[in-house]
Amino acid sequence: MNSKPGKKPVILVFAGHDPSGGAGIQADIEAIASTGCHAATVITSLTAQNTAEFRNAYHQDAARFQEQTELILADMQIDACKIGLINNLTILSSIEKVLFKLPGIPVVLDPVINAGTGEKIMTENIRNALQEKLLPFTTVITPNSIEARELVGRDNLDDAAGEFIKKGCHAILITGTHENSDKVINTLYIEKEKPLIFEWERLPAIYHGSGCTLSSCIAAHLGLGADIKTAVAKAQSYTWNTLKHGFSLGKKQLHPDRFYWKAK
Amino acid sequence: MNSKPGKKPVILVFAGHDPSGGAGIQADIEAIASTGCHAATVITSLTAQNTAEFRNAYHQDAARFQEQTELILADMQIDACKIGLINNLTILSSIEKVLFKLPGIPVVLDPVINAGTGEKIMTENIRNALQEKLLPFTTVITPNSIEARELVGRDNLDDAAGEFIKKGCHAILITGTHENSDKVINTLYIEKEKPLIFEWERLPAIYHGSGCTLSSCIAAHLGLGADIKTAVAKAQSYTWNTLKHGFSLGKKQLHPDRFYWKAK
Repeated sequence: MNSKPGKKPVILVFAGHDPSGGAGIQADIEAIASTGCHAATVITSLTAQNTAEFRNAYHQDAARFQEQTELILADMQIDACKIGLINNLTILSSIEKVLFKLPGIPVVLDPVINAGTGEKIMTENIRNALQEKLLPFTTVITPNSIEARELVGRDNLDDAAGEFIKKGCHAILITGTHENSDKVINTLYIEKEKPLIFEWERLPAIYHGSGCTLSSCIAAHLGLGADIKTAVAKAQSYTWNTLKHGFSLGKKQLHPDRFYWKAK
Repeated sequence: MNSKPGKKPVILVFAGHDPSGGAGIQADIEAIASTGCHAATVITSLTAQNTAEFRNAYHQDAARFQEQTELILADMQIDACKIGLINNLTILSSIEKVLFKLPGIPVVLDPVINAGTGEKIMTENIRNALQEKLLPFTTVITPNSIEARELVGRDNLDDAAGEFIKKGCHAILITGTHENSDKVINTLYIEKEKPLIFEWERLPAIYHGSGCTLSSCIAAHLGLGADIKTAVAKAQSYTWNTLKHGFSLGKKQLHPDRFYWKAK
């Protein structure tokens, strides 16, 4: 980690771009800045969406993606990595190669299977490649309960977490917003440890970009040197607060207020 | 302007993306958030660059750019607009059409002619179209002294400002970092008013994204309802502070610290 004066930890982000600014690299940039780090973002995919609709995701040209990534790696020291939306196999392989070159850095993987508005984003070949190529590098994966079940094909969440660990992932935070429970129950599974339960008051609205916010904030805390449990606890608290202070800019989903702490 | 509880002014940004996070939409997102507004960004161009080198700018597909813009306009109320890097004529025309549809909103135009590292970005046909099509909608244009001279072909800066006003632009802030003066002297020209001089202590380093930071912060203040003089004064002060607190993440130019106020 960078700790000299005049520096900040750099979090390398591979993710999509959302023009509405609720999700994607804007969520990453804002959550990472709020946590005291700097985001360097390489865009996997340009999306056309707003708070009510996910219309299209156009993956970046893979050679350009690689050129941009190489220029960043040649210039900056990376302290952690966050991976979001991937919808192209060549880009996925390119990310795998980057992770090979950065041994030991914390990696947070947010598997974007569906848009917040419900549309399917991840194809089956991406899903398979993601598990085979990226899970062995992953420090923490952050699926919601629907994504966890779908990714590894197990209905029981404890079993699903076990599958992720078998595939080489070190820790799994499964979020429980979509489960039928009074409170939102998130569970952190770490290899060889007892699962840790976090309970959060269920909020009344729906939000655009909560998963991106959570995973980036975890990556930033890991980049600052926190251990997994601390990073995951702090990032959940931050994210819950961004949602509680969410504001209404579009016609449907609320935007998390990632600077809710600014007013205090 | 949006002033209901749970809202923030939305600043619509048309600009490039810089993976290093010093310039482009990341500068815009961070400066706009720091000023208490929300950025909605549509990417004109994906660039390959770092703090030492500007290698390439790949404009977005114009039809996708338009699709993304239309989804934002269908969903959100826009309070101000900031325009940065443009390197495609169809995208420029698309932006002109958007400004037609948003009469009366403040527009800040940052004419990106050269990269901070010196490479030429803007072609002559873009330069001409920008003046003809966008200046009539522009509330404040923010060229540095080199760009001001080059854009309108006048060596004297007062004369250059007069040319911008003739072409329909309401106000011009010419920044003086590149002039041979002890202090940095920025001059604000407003139609029919006496020029306003701002003097700033010259800082010793070179920075990546100072122009994007300044222009976005002006747009955010205008979106909050400030008058031009107040917006320009506050944005210069903010930008100067981001540079004074600039940090070293790459090998050459410093990154502005757009969250320098966070530590206080």
